[in-house]
Amino acid sequence: MPLIDTPQRLLDTLLAMPPARALGLALGDYDGQRLSLRAPLAPNVNDKGCAFGGSLSSLLTLSAWGLCSLKLGEAGFAAETYVQDSTVRYLAPLYADLEARAWLDPAQDWGDFLAAMNSRGKARAHVLAEVALPGGGVACSFEGRFVAKAA
Amino acid sequence: MPLIDTPQRLLDTLLAMPPARALGLALGDYDGQRLSLRAPLAPNVNDKGCAFGGSLSSLLTLSAWGLCSLKLGEAGFAAETYVQDSTVRYLAPLYADLEARAWLDPAQDWGDFLAAMNSRGKARAHVLAEVALPGGGVACSFEGRFVAKAA
Repeated sequence: MPLIDTPQRLLDTLLAMPPARALGLALGDYDGQRLSLRAPLAPNVNDKGCAFGGSLSSLLTLSAWGLCSLKLGEAGFAAETYVQDSTVRYLAPLYADLEARAWLDPAQDWGDFLAAMNSRGKARAHVLAEVALPGGGVACSFEGRFVAKAA
Repeated sequence: MPLIDTPQRLLDTLLAMPPARALGLALGDYDGQRLSLRAPLAPNVNDKGCAFGGSLSSLLTLSAWGLCSLKLGEAGFAAETYVQDSTVRYLAPLYADLEARAWLDPAQDWGDFLAAMNSRGKARAHVLAEVALPGGGVACSFEGRFVAKAA
């Protein structure tokens, strides 16, 4: 599998998945610690005219998965990364385009994660993410556990 | 909003949502207690050739939401139903078409749920769901809390 060592390579990998294309996925920002992914509201709208919970969950999952994949790729690991479990809290309806931002649980450290990959070929990450409301506040929050295995 | 009092009306409501159409959603079975929804693998495949976690989460959420909506519609309630939070556990990769089956937490009772709608115009349901593996076992399990409000 290809090394996901730049945001563009991450985007290429994501857009090879039909369900990510259906979201209308685009890159947001990446500063080495936080990754955001965007999607327009139109293909992700529910029966109430706001963002569909499943689309929010998908975008949150992909932002967290993408962050893990980038940190692994930047360190030279061509790894398989899986989501093990996730919890999403839907706090307020979102009547705007979607942007999900993911970061590592502050109780954890990417250095330790990569050291585990180096020594055991396997590592676990607890990743947090959220979708903000345009006027401030949070539309939904996510936490998920991911496991990476050397390919 | 329309009364969702038959599986076909539920399907019509779901297919009015672009993200549900993108899943390739179809009705499975409904026996008054359990509802299943199906989706083919092709539009829901990830980079590893198995079902994308976001699609699994979406289908699980819709099956649970759909079950609440049907129980409300059958009882004559035109309600707005929202997911409040959900947890998904991804237990095994699924290399086959998706079918999510939802049922009410056995600790709860639809009679109490509908009585709450009648008396307070609001009710909460804890719904369980899972996607089975074709050879037996579970690909992923879901639990979610939903709230319905009289429209």
